[in-house]
Amino acid sequence: MVVKLYGPDSAASNRVLVCLIEKGVEFETVPVDLFKGEQRAPEFLKLQPFGAVPVVQDGDCTLFESRAIIRYFAEKYKHQGTDLLGKTIEERGLVEQWLEVEAQNYHPPILDLVLKIVFGPFRGLTPDPKLIKESEDKLSKVLDVYEERLSKGKYLAGDFVSLADLSHLPFTQYLVGKIGKGYMIRDRKNLSAWWDDISGRPSWKKVLELWPGQY
Amino acid sequence: MVVKLYGPDSAASNRVLVCLIEKGVEFETVPVDLFKGEQRAPEFLKLQPFGAVPVVQDGDCTLFESRAIIRYFAEKYKHQGTDLLGKTIEERGLVEQWLEVEAQNYHPPILDLVLKIVFGPFRGLTPDPKLIKESEDKLSKVLDVYEERLSKGKYLAGDFVSLADLSHLPFTQYLVGKIGKGYMIRDRKNLSAWWDDISGRPSWKKVLELWPGQY
Repeated sequence: MVVKLYGPDSAASNRVLVCLIEKGVEFETVPVDLFKGEQRAPEFLKLQPFGAVPVVQDGDCTLFESRAIIRYFAEKYKHQGTDLLGKTIEERGLVEQWLEVEAQNYHPPILDLVLKIVFGPFRGLTPDPKLIKESEDKLSKVLDVYEERLSKGKYLAGDFVSLADLSHLPFTQYLVGKIGKGYMIRDRKNLSAWWDDISGRPSWKKVLELWPGQY
Repeated sequence: MVVKLYGPDSAASNRVLVCLIEKGVEFETVPVDLFKGEQRAPEFLKLQPFGAVPVVQDGDCTLFESRAIIRYFAEKYKHQGTDLLGKTIEERGLVEQWLEVEAQNYHPPILDLVLKIVFGPFRGLTPDPKLIKESEDKLSKVLDVYEERLSKGKYLAGDFVSLADLSHLPFTQYLVGKIGKGYMIRDRKNLSAWWDDISGRPSWKKVLELWPGQY
C-alpha cells in the first residue's frame, strides 16, 4: 500500500519527503492548508492531536513528528535505497546525536528567523532587527561547531550521509533562500562544501521541484 | 569497560541514568559542576562542543545529547534488562513519536517553569507570574493530549514501558517537586496513574536516592 503523507508543503513535511525519496518508498501527498487552519479541524486532530503536520499513514500505522517518521522509514527499509542510519550501533549513535543537535540547537534559532523574516510579514508584523540579530548570533555559534565537526568528516555523523544531514535540508534552504542569510553557510568552508553536497542530491532537487517558490 | 557518565546531577543526565539502570549497564559518574561553569572548560568542550551535560564514554564511543544516548544504549543492549524500544518496527515508530513529543512539546514549557521557578531565584530573579501562567497554560494543553492518549494504553507508545515514558521522569519530578504544580498531574486521572507507575519504578527510585534533595 502506498504511504500517505499529510501536509506536504511545509518544511517539516519536506524533511520526510526527502527521506522517502532516498529510500525509494512510494507515497502520495494529501494537502493540509495551514493558512486556512485545516490542521486544527476535528478530523485532522484525530490523526495528530497537537494540530501539526506532517502525519503519515503506512497501512495501519499512523505516525506524526517528522524526525520520528524518518527514523521509522530508515529502519523499516534499512536495506532499500540509501542507508541513512550508519552500519554499526556506534554509527547510529552518532546519527542520533546529530539528529538531536539539529532538533535542539540548530532548529530553534533558525525557526525564529523563518517565523520573523518569512512568515511575520504575512501577519502584518515588521521584523525587529534586534531580535533577528539575537537569533542570528545564536545560530552563528551553532554553525561554528558544525564547521569544526565537518573538518573531521564529510558528513555530520562521519563519512556517510545520514538522517542527521538530511534533517537540516528544509530549514537551511530557507536560510540561503527567503531568509537571505546564505553568507552564514558560505563564510564557513567545510559547512559550505557540506551544504553543496547534501542540497545537490537528486532527492532534494526533486522535493524543490514539487513546490517551486517555497524557499 | 564501565560506561563513564559526565555530569550526573542534572535532569538530562538523570534521563540517561534511569535508562542505564533499567538496562543493567554498569557505569561510573564524573561530576561536572554547572554552577562553576566546568561545562565550558576547554577540556570538556572537546567532549561536548556546545558545553552541556550529559556526555557518555563507552569504550571508544563518546556521545552527547541525552535522548541520543538513551537510544544508543537501548539498542546496544536490546536483549538485556527492560526492552525500551518496543517489539516491532511499528512499536518503535510510536516510541520515537512520543520521544519527539516529549522533546518538542512537553519539554519547552516545563523547562521554562524550571528555569523561572527553581533556578531563577539563584540568580536573584523573581519569577514573573504572567510568564509562569503562560508556560503553565502551554503545558496544560500538552497534558490534555497525554490524558487522552493514556486512556487508550497504559504507556505512551502502547502497553509497554519505553524510552518515551522514562524520558519524562526528570522534568516531571521537578513539576511535582520544586515547581509545586503536582496538581497538573493529579487533576488528570490517566496521567496520574501513569506517573505513579513510572515514578515508582525501582530504577527511578535509585536515581532519586543518588541525589537527595535535587527535585
